[in-house]
Amino acid sequence: MVSKKMEALGVKKSVIREIFEYAKGRKAEIGEDRVFDYSIGNPSVAAPEDVKGALLRLLTEADPVKLHGYTSAQGDPAVRRAIADHLNATYDAGADPNLIYLTVGAAAALTISMNAILNDEKDEEIVVLAPFFPEYRVFAEKAGARLTVVPCTEPDFQIDFDALEKAVRPETKAVIVNSPNNPTGVVLSEQSILRLCDILRKAEETFGHPIYLISDEPYRDLIYGDVSVPYLTRYYDDTVVCYSFSKSLSLPGERIGYILVSPKMRNASSVYAAVLGAGRALGFVCAPALFQFMIPYCLGKTADTSVYQRNRDLLYGALTEYGFTCANPDGAFYLFMKSPEPDAYAFCETAKKYELLLVPSDDFGFPGYVRIAYCVTTEQIERSLPAFRLLAKDYHLVS
Amino acid sequence: MVSKKMEALGVKKSVIREIFEYAKGRKAEIGEDRVFDYSIGNPSVAAPEDVKGALLRLLTEADPVKLHGYTSAQGDPAVRRAIADHLNATYDAGADPNLIYLTVGAAAALTISMNAILNDEKDEEIVVLAPFFPEYRVFAEKAGARLTVVPCTEPDFQIDFDALEKAVRPETKAVIVNSPNNPTGVVLSEQSILRLCDILRKAEETFGHPIYLISDEPYRDLIYGDVSVPYLTRYYDDTVVCYSFSKSLSLPGERIGYILVSPKMRNASSVYAAVLGAGRALGFVCAPALFQFMIPYCLGKTADTSVYQRNRDLLYGALTEYGFTCANPDGAFYLFMKSPEPDAYAFCETAKKYELLLVPSDDFGFPGYVRIAYCVTTEQIERSLPAFRLLAKDYHLVS
Repeated sequence: MVSKKMEALGVKKSVIREIFEYAKGRKAEIGEDRVFDYSIGNPSVAAPEDVKGALLRLLTEADPVKLHGYTSAQGDPAVRRAIADHLNATYDAGADPNLIYLTVGAAAALTISMNAILNDEKDEEIVVLAPFFPEYRVFAEKAGARLTVVPCTEPDFQIDFDALEKAVRPETKAVIVNSPNNPTGVVLSEQSILRLCDILRKAEETFGHPIYLISDEPYRDLIYGDVSVPYLTRYYDDTVVCYSFSKSLSLPGERIGYILVSPKMRNASSVYAAVLGAGRALGFVCAPALFQFMIPYCLGKTADTSVYQRNRDLLYGALTEYGFTCANPDGAFYLFMKSPEPDAYAFCETAKKYELLLVPSDDFGFPGYVRIAYCVTTEQIERSLPAFRLLAKDYHLVS
Repeated sequence: MVSKKMEALGVKKSVIREIFEYAKGRKAEIGEDRVFDYSIGNPSVAAPEDVKGALLRLLTEADPVKLHGYTSAQGDPAVRRAIADHLNATYDAGADPNLIYLTVGAAAALTISMNAILNDEKDEEIVVLAPFFPEYRVFAEKAGARLTVVPCTEPDFQIDFDALEKAVRPETKAVIVNSPNNPTGVVLSEQSILRLCDILRKAEETFGHPIYLISDEPYRDLIYGDVSVPYLTRYYDDTVVCYSFSKSLSLPGERIGYILVSPKMRNASSVYAAVLGAGRALGFVCAPALFQFMIPYCLGKTADTSVYQRNRDLLYGALTEYGFTCANPDGAFYLFMKSPEPDAYAFCETAKKYELLLVPSDDFGFPGYVRIAYCVTTEQIERSLPAFRLLAKDYHLVS
């Protein structure tokens, strides 16, 4: 007498959450600094001072009734305008504040977008590029769609266009891209984006209906060096951007993000209305008000990402030196490393012997790898390197 | 190529939101203090100082990485323990912190609870007592259930037990109660609760499956005089409480509340697991972290409710004096007034001529009334009384 599907999701948890909970227990057992927890994408760098400054200022200066009151369902108009102005100045995004909808984080942005565009009535599919964030499957299936998985090419983790062309069918309602990617950290090149959009435009013509490009962008502002992440409204009209401030501002628990519907979309006003309706029906009344009002103070700011870059350099350098194979990440804070044995679960169990907590890649739709979330202290990385070396030795990768 | 149902929900908006938006425009047109906006349940009293104190203290003293980081999906354990301790000390509620799940407000608590207990597979019904909060229908239908409406008795707005007994059928999965009620402000008496629970227990036996009692309690702490609101876990084992701090702490925009699954429920652990699963699948990763950590500082506190009590006394006294018929509310901040003509929409249009913005009761499932949300300044009430008097005169209720 409960939903068996929901119960199973609640009991099983995500594999990431499971390892995260194991880590908590293990730390209590043998000590915080003896466990090398690389399981969860919880930013390790403090939010920039701008966040604290904005929150303190709002709490001490603003009228509390307005500050903590309901905003419009789509979010405060001045906040939406500030976001649009920022995106237009930074990316020439063509954003319209009246097609932006503030959300309780990126997960909510995704579930609302999916529930808005899926039609309930018939077979519908969402295409994802593997490896992908495992919750995409949970969100899509709850919203009523089947997931079609298109594995990326190795070792660069760009799009396999032949496979994509075959996967896009009349039932395809949307394609999700996630660049920088969780779990690889890889950024899709402009060349990949151009070819992807070309394929989707042709498919739209052939099938006679829109195929939405959902751009899941929690890592847009976490990039290293001179990498640039193409802004997709400039390349494809039927784009829906799902952004979150969780990772860039180190606020993952606060749940604040937005949906941007491209004004160039032919049926933009219908899609936006459906976003409002889906947000309402799923129980999202408005995004948390205090954190909405914080946004204009923090646009374009990030937590200190130099830590992540240092971590990446250190870890990538050491692991490849020890004989492991990894995709070199351009952004986010994940390293995707090939398991030296075919079964990544077995490899993760071996790694546990050295107190290294890694996430097997199977749930990311791309078996045979592990995800290493390096949003940890640089000290943890330094302390864990001997353990990684022993692990490599265990597999005869290094002598 | 969007969900037509979601688009319709987005375009139509709730009747409350529609009048609220009209009010904004009208205020801009003729001046803030000439429009008597009684449309929305947005608390007019500032949050208690404890809220500001707690938030400032957390922001200046806590480690920002922990403060703003992910919590467990069900919420921070210490916060859940504090809530359980408070409920047990105050109501002898028998609450268990491991069966509490923090949510992004009461709306999320309701959608998550419904998606947890509904089974997708077959015809399922949720019984509501009318008048009821209109979004119940939106939430239930999106979750896959039909709504069965049982009108309350007039003029006391208690339960019509004969009608309820007929309405509860094998397909019934849950009954929602909301006491103090939106839109009447009426508190269900202990006698009503006892009889309701008796009927549900008998139905459980007859049909051989649980019927959940969902107690939607955003107004539990807004009560006047010596009224007491029975705590339902003490009366019925299959109880799920949906609480929100929105109204009691004047934080409606911040979206913070919880689900409590009664430990006495036979399948409590299954229901709780399904709550976790539904929260996950709908895109609620965790409740906003800063506001989670605020809770232990503010349990048992409320905004200054004496204002609402003064407003109620003033408005109820004047309106009944002018010849209107109203239920006298024991809690919340709504007055439910009988329309002097059968069509409440027409009555609301007439009221608009006097700049009185009232909400017709049709969407609350109980036509022929209007809801007056008196969570406004006492000055607004005083200034609006001549307008109410003219409205009464228009209907020849007063000379």
